[in-house]
Amino acid sequence: MRYPKESPPAFTLTSGPVDAYPEVLRALASTVIYDYDPAFQLVYEKAALKAQKAMATPEPPLILHGEPVLALEATAASLIAKDDCVLNLASGVYGKGFGYWAARYAAKVEEIEVPYDECVEPEAVQAFLKDHPEIKVVAACHHDTPSGTLNDVDAIGEVVAEAGALLIVDAVSSWGGMRTTPGACRAGVYVTGPNKCLGCPPALSLAAVSSEAWDKIDSNPDAPTASMLSLTDWRHAWKSTEPFPFTPSVSEVNGLDAALDRYLNEGPERVWARHDLTAAACRDGVRAMGLDIWPAREEIASPTTTAVKMPQGADAAKIIAVARTRYGVMLSAGRGDTEGKLIRIGHMGPSAQPMYALIAIAALGGAMAATGVDVDVGSGLVAAQSRIDASG
Amino acid sequence: MRYPKESPPAFTLTSGPVDAYPEVLRALASTVIYDYDPAFQLVYEKAALKAQKAMATPEPPLILHGEPVLALEATAASLIAKDDCVLNLASGVYGKGFGYWAARYAAKVEEIEVPYDECVEPEAVQAFLKDHPEIKVVAACHHDTPSGTLNDVDAIGEVVAEAGALLIVDAVSSWGGMRTTPGACRAGVYVTGPNKCLGCPPALSLAAVSSEAWDKIDSNPDAPTASMLSLTDWRHAWKSTEPFPFTPSVSEVNGLDAALDRYLNEGPERVWARHDLTAAACRDGVRAMGLDIWPAREEIASPTTTAVKMPQGADAAKIIAVARTRYGVMLSAGRGDTEGKLIRIGHMGPSAQPMYALIAIAALGGAMAATGVDVDVGSGLVAAQSRIDASG
Amino acid sequence: MRYPKESPPAFTLTSGPVDAYPEVLRALASTVIYDYDPAFQLVYEKAALKAQKAMATPEPPLILHGEPVLALEATAASLIAKDDCVLNLASGVYGKGFGYWAARYAAKVEEIEVPYDECVEPEAVQAFLKDHPEIKVVAACHHDTPSGTLNDVDAIGEVVAEAGALLIVDAVSSWGGMRTTPGACRAGVYVTGPNKCLGCPPALSLAAVSSEAWDKIDSNPDAPTASMLSLTDWRHAWKSTEPFPFTPSVSEVNGLDAALDRYLNEGPERVWARHDLTAAACRDGVRAMGLDIWPAREEIASPTTTAVKMPQGADAAKIIAVARTRYGVMLSAGRGDTEGKLIRIGHMGPSAQPMYALIAIAALGGAMAATGVDVDVGSGLVAAQSRIDASG
Amino acid sequence: MRYPKESPPAFTLTSGPVDAYPEVLRALASTVIYDYDPAFQLVYEKAALKAQKAMATPEPPLILHGEPVLALEATAASLIAKDDCVLNLASGVYGKGFGYWAARYAAKVEEIEVPYDECVEPEAVQAFLKDHPEIKVVAACHHDTPSGTLNDVDAIGEVVAEAGALLIVDAVSSWGGMRTTPGACRAGVYVTGPNKCLGCPPALSLAAVSSEAWDKIDSNPDAPTASMLSLTDWRHAWKSTEPFPFTPSVSEVNGLDAALDRYLNEGPERVWARHDLTAAACRDGVRAMGLDIWPAREEIASPTTTAVKMPQGADAAKIIAVARTRYGVMLSAGRGDTEGKLIRIGHMGPSAQPMYALIAIAALGGAMAATGVDVDVGSGLVAAQSRIDASG
Repeated sequence: MRYPKESPPAFTLTSGPVDAYPEVLRALASTVIYDYDPAFQLVYEKAALKAQKAMATPEPPLILHGEPVLALEATAASLIAKDDCVLNLASGVYGKGFGYWAARYAAKVEEIEVPYDECVEPEAVQAFLKDHPEIKVVAACHHDTPSGTLNDVDAIGEVVAEAGALLIVDAVSSWGGMRTTPGACRAGVYVTGPNKCLGCPPALSLAAVSSEAWDKIDSNPDAPTASMLSLTDWRHAWKSTEPFPFTPSVSEVNGLDAALDRYLNEGPERVWARHDLTAAACRDGVRAMGLDIWPAREEIASPTTTAVKMPQGADAAKIIAVARTRYGVMLSAGRGDTEGKLIRIGHMGPSAQPMYALIAIAALGGAMAATGVDVDVGSGLVAAQSRIDASG
Repeated sequence: MRYPKESPPAFTLTSGPVDAYPEVLRALASTVIYDYDPAFQLVYEKAALKAQKAMATPEPPLILHGEPVLALEATAASLIAKDDCVLNLASGVYGKGFGYWAARYAAKVEEIEVPYDECVEPEAVQAFLKDHPEIKVVAACHHDTPSGTLNDVDAIGEVVAEAGALLIVDAVSSWGGMRTTPGACRAGVYVTGPNKCLGCPPALSLAAVSSEAWDKIDSNPDAPTASMLSLTDWRHAWKSTEPFPFTPSVSEVNGLDAALDRYLNEGPERVWARHDLTAAACRDGVRAMGLDIWPAREEIASPTTTAVKMPQGADAAKIIAVARTRYGVMLSAGRGDTEGKLIRIGHMGPSAQPMYALIAIAALGGAMAATGVDVDVGSGLVAAQSRIDASG
Repeated sequence: MRYPKESPPAFTLTSGPVDAYPEVLRALASTVIYDYDPAFQLVYEKAALKAQKAMATPEPPLILHGEPVLALEATAASLIAKDDCVLNLASGVYGKGFGYWAARYAAKVEEIEVPYDECVEPEAVQAFLKDHPEIKVVAACHHDTPSGTLNDVDAIGEVVAEAGALLIVDAVSSWGGMRTTPGACRAGVYVTGPNKCLGCPPALSLAAVSSEAWDKIDSNPDAPTASMLSLTDWRHAWKSTEPFPFTPSVSEVNGLDAALDRYLNEGPERVWARHDLTAAACRDGVRAMGLDIWPAREEIASPTTTAVKMPQGADAAKIIAVARTRYGVMLSAGRGDTEGKLIRIGHMGPSAQPMYALIAIAALGGAMAATGVDVDVGSGLVAAQSRIDASG
Repeated sequence: MRYPKESPPAFTLTSGPVDAYPEVLRALASTVIYDYDPAFQLVYEKAALKAQKAMATPEPPLILHGEPVLALEATAASLIAKDDCVLNLASGVYGKGFGYWAARYAAKVEEIEVPYDECVEPEAVQAFLKDHPEIKVVAACHHDTPSGTLNDVDAIGEVVAEAGALLIVDAVSSWGGMRTTPGACRAGVYVTGPNKCLGCPPALSLAAVSSEAWDKIDSNPDAPTASMLSLTDWRHAWKSTEPFPFTPSVSEVNGLDAALDRYLNEGPERVWARHDLTAAACRDGVRAMGLDIWPAREEIASPTTTAVKMPQGADAAKIIAVARTRYGVMLSAGRGDTEGKLIRIGHMGPSAQPMYALIAIAALGGAMAATGVDVDVGSGLVAAQSRIDASG
């Protein structure tokens, strides 16, 4: 039995895009109404207010009409003025990548870089900021998806605030899957996307901007306006009485609205517990198979992605292909510097179901065995199951 | 009987967003698969090839992951180099607006501006280019939606090509609803959107770039890369073997794919005929009511939007509100300079059905009468019906 | 321009099936869950309780898993015992038809039959029952769809109750589109279907059974059990703690649930007003065209269907075909005895929008004119529009 | 972590209803068109022709508008004449149940009954028919779902044909999931349902009637007509030029059409292999856990359902509840005589994915362990995985 590549896989257990929740898929199929129809203006306002509630922000976060790279690039373009010194924290491919955008707009970009299986220590940031009082903006990636590692952005936010700088947080693939809010990390701009743990398709981003960050953006003469890269254009657009700077993605907003309903109805704590247990079962299964997770320490492993370190001789691309062909299970490769070194199992929204840990372990382990890697799949399955049972 | 503003209208006859075709809505509800899943890479490639067929281009047009303002801004940023002189043709609010983006990137922007119920004559462009051989890029809006007027971009394309300049065409709300292709107007970059006449929701844009335009973009050191505003990043992304620069909007691509199937299956000529007859019936109805269309001449009225000139004393905003409340029919206001001066009835994709002309005439006429404007709705209905019947 | 028969029409203005409401279509696409899953048992119970509220019955109506002919046949089989004398009221094809089912189960079926453009007078029923005290069951069709006529079932119910008989009411195509309840007509069994005015697809029926009728069914040894034709099997199935006699139509129940939400949220009075005004505008338009409605008197014309009498020489089948081909508008033919004598325009659920009266008049009138019938379509359109405006 | 009963489960691994394929769910959301619209008549005809191809019958099978109990009851009512002697084969609850319907219509019903973990031997049928030449009709259940056991209907069909009797086959939960056709078992009437292995929701049934069976039905004066229980009414209804006896379930037909497309496109052999491997992995897992399957022998275990025998002291209802609450996995109880004695895992359509064997084993085993039953879940998982791997 083979799963042909022309047909959708049976299981998408990637680190995103993942499938959307069924209620989101149905909402995407809603009648498209005119953006200036009063009914749509109300839908938009209500969705923004639900996002505010879900993200616990003092005002509604911006809904930007492109996947989260849009919000991240727009944040760099808007918040970083041309005479700013920026400190970029790089503990992975995505954190590193933000530095390139920062460099496009800043006078200077400093960087604290650590190995990509590690995190940036808040103390290191504190020390750096003490030595570099000229730093105006610090950028941190909460969950560096290509590594499956977390930075402690709440503690980092503390030291950044002490230093009087503004923190940009990329929480794209963590928010909605674990306890994290813009407020808890005192973020200037906090970017996330409904396309990961909230269970929407990729197409939108959410950006929570603090009042200090708005002040800095307002005083930045180069902050984009009348542009896709503008944050400013959208500041008041959530109000049903205000115009949109351009046509919002009506169907995706309908999907977001349904995803927020689901998130708030299921209850954030319960959603996070689902992600946490799925990841814990996966990690236990991985280790019991005789493998290791990529993150250097359990504490910095994200509950939304399990990155599995490839042992000597394992061919990650081939293993992914075998898992897809033999089991119908799609997994994610690494990206950039982590490509080939790890394979990622996502736990995001609809895929954050503990029982998927069994399918992930079986598919990963089975494909590794099939390609000649010595793994004990049975022990992996038992360990994953035990972890799930222990939670009961 | 009143239609509350909290509920969707019964009929959306706006100039976009309009409702999507039912098959597109259903496609939006498809399982979301990983962008690097081989099945999705094939979906993307096939959609791009269908777009190529539909647009009759030598290679697949770019699918950009934001509504058409993204493609227009990205075109300005990519094609216009900082020492370029640009000629912007402004016969309406959208054409005028492109000039501001052009000015952000060009050394100099010249403009031929005409009253917003008129079009720019190809002869005027020819004469201007003769006097200004330094012009490298000309920008024209095919259908200036806020006016419901067409520019003859095929003829303009001829004189631009003769002058050795590159033409940017905004065909967002004309392509797919009438006979127009990138090739026929010899466009350097031709931008359209699936969210108008193709019957998709707003979220994507399509950009056909000629080989001459690619050469110019390649030689422009400021052409964005690693950016939402990049065209270059997406040049080869349509191939199933090439990576995506960032995550494409999976669900919207599924919708686009279904819309292209429908367009090609129904047959472009038949689709255009539907748009044409709907608009013709509307225009006849408008005039028979005792009103006039906004375009100065019948020949420059778009088959995809009927802009109705407001007579002395008519309150466009109030008329639109009454049509929505009393009849459940949503119509579009003007934009910018045309706001208050006209009301627009869209004929785009699913709303391009001749019988909707009757509903449009009845709702517009009824709302005008209800607000004290002297119109003969009955004659309008008879005239619209006659036009439809004459086509049989 | 021609609408090919292979493609769906642009407008379905038939007397049912009509299109379903968009929220119902989306609900039909919900994940199918096991009928004994506790979540589905709750969905079923809630839907039944919403139906009870909508129909104002003392206990939840039965949801039967076939279109309303199932409930009608099951009612005949269950309620009518083999020694019963039944009075069948026949004012149309459907009322007449019920008599055949009654005859299958009854000792004797008496009938009051009137011309099919008329209604049965309550006084005639009263007189008949006085003369025939042996009658145990009376059957009446509220809205005889093939005629577009109403019987006054509330008044009939009064005289049937006085006579101590039980009344079976076929309210399939009236309930949900006008003021009518099982209680108001004191029905023993009152059958309706979600596939008409409630805006669902055809697949289910609803039957409200009074306690007197349950007593009669319980005492009927031939009342079907363990059968598709059983009412008894389903009596308690609505409770989440009770078993289903066979597998319910899960997706259709999801659709029904959404339709009931919509009906109750929009507000029954508002829904009825929508049906009423659409029908009134249609009738005015029909007469102004120079035609007549089929019902003998305005008062007995249903607000859910406008039956238009064909004038001498008009070919109904051809007119319907022309309306479909030329305008993309689907209308209904008559049935049985009314076939060829009338054409029906449905006003049911999503098609009960006053503006559709214009499309119906235009399509019907235009197709009649095209086939050589002398009609004044313009006057029809003006009259329909006037009626709508007069309601404002 | 607990899965609340108010919310849908995470996994439906029951013996039906199961979830529908995504393409079927989307098809259910299609615009509802009038049953006499020419476009729907073509949809119906095409669906019937696809069903003919899928079932390999000489003419299109009947599509009946109720779940398969309708087709079974209608078959009993239509085919069995009041002076017929019928042989009913009872190897399970469903086979036994058919006898009650048969008895309603037949002069006499004989029965071969075997324990419900066994099958009826063709030789026994042969011998019985030899001794009872008066038997006109034999009824057999191919897959007796409440037992998960198969009867060899192809061999039974042989001996029934030899004896000159007509065979009724209930293949509701086997057809589409394994190699079986009406022709191979020489069935007079062969009933199946799209709601099991074809991946549709419950609402329709399919009945293939042989020409001999039609002859018998035609000569049966009591065969229902003008009834929900009629087969005759629907004989020619598949043709686009023929009327429907009552309104077909339009949306469900749209779903069936999509399901048949999927079945034929995926390829029946590939679909059957998916079911077979899922069941084999489940059975191996069950045994390795220290449990046994309910069927007396491996050869009679259905590839579409794995029935697991409850060991001494196991509380099936409680185990099912724990699996639902703790793992979000819904399993099926037994029915009637098998209730409490077994638990069923379905492999039908979308749930026939080998990896689901792991989830089923984990949920069943985990829930058994949690309720005090001694099982070795780990060995079960390893065995299931091994079976899947062995197929690669």
